[in-house]
Amino acid sequence: MTTENSRAADEARIRELIEERVRAIRAKDVEALMSNHAPDVLMFDALDPLRYVGSDAVRERAGQWLSWYRGPVGYEVRDLSVTAGDEAAFCHYLYRVTGTMTNGREVDMWVRSTLCFRKTDGAWVVAHEHTSVPFDAESGKASVNLKP
Amino acid sequence: MTTENSRAADEARIRELIEERVRAIRAKDVEALMSNHAPDVLMFDALDPLRYVGSDAVRERAGQWLSWYRGPVGYEVRDLSVTAGDEAAFCHYLYRVTGTMTNGREVDMWVRSTLCFRKTDGAWVVAHEHTSVPFDAESGKASVNLKP
Repeated sequence: MTTENSRAADEARIRELIEERVRAIRAKDVEALMSNHAPDVLMFDALDPLRYVGSDAVRERAGQWLSWYRGPVGYEVRDLSVTAGDEAAFCHYLYRVTGTMTNGREVDMWVRSTLCFRKTDGAWVVAHEHTSVPFDAESGKASVNLKP
Repeated sequence: MTTENSRAADEARIRELIEERVRAIRAKDVEALMSNHAPDVLMFDALDPLRYVGSDAVRERAGQWLSWYRGPVGYEVRDLSVTAGDEAAFCHYLYRVTGTMTNGREVDMWVRSTLCFRKTDGAWVVAHEHTSVPFDAESGKASVNLKP
């Protein structure tokens, strides 16, 4: 393959990984969600604490998060941008998460997501996740009602 | 150069860009801070709104942020991790920002940062920034008092 074709194939694979991620979250399937994470993945999550280190910690957090939802979880991706090199790649997007929590609270929130990948033995794996909402400097509150 | 040497050189350059960034912030030098940004950089900032699109918007935001500080801005980087390929690279780290704002408020806060780069005409440029603090699900408040 030429470099250009190889690049296109790498970007296509990253997009496929995002589609798999979306399907896994909608299915509340933690194992599917975690199937492409590096063992040493480092995650900055939208909620406390500052960081999660390692796929075991990320898996536990993902399971906890999905268990908060009663019934289906909506996860809509918008403005996905992918950049891939030969051994490192990154993407960013906004997502809208919707659903009803077990405590009855309705969630409908736009969140920012950055995923970073490295190629290990020819396969792309998630090396880093950063998910967040911004906050309002005056109130100190997380801005969970913003819309793109 | 071998691929391995080239990779090491790319990672060294990314680390240098972070050092330049730290110096620029401490000097409150917006032009130095923005000197390696792609024109189409997309930033997710710790404060509202959801995103900034383009280097003009990021520059304006950076100038506003630095102008909030009376006197020096402290910016300490911790746990920097860099991954570089041939044309894409990413890094993440925590930073502690300290200083006194013009309204008298003391800032001392740990923040998560992810920077993503692409190589354009042989030079690494910042294509994406994601900076945030997590929030507490119960209070809805941004967690500005966490320590690593």
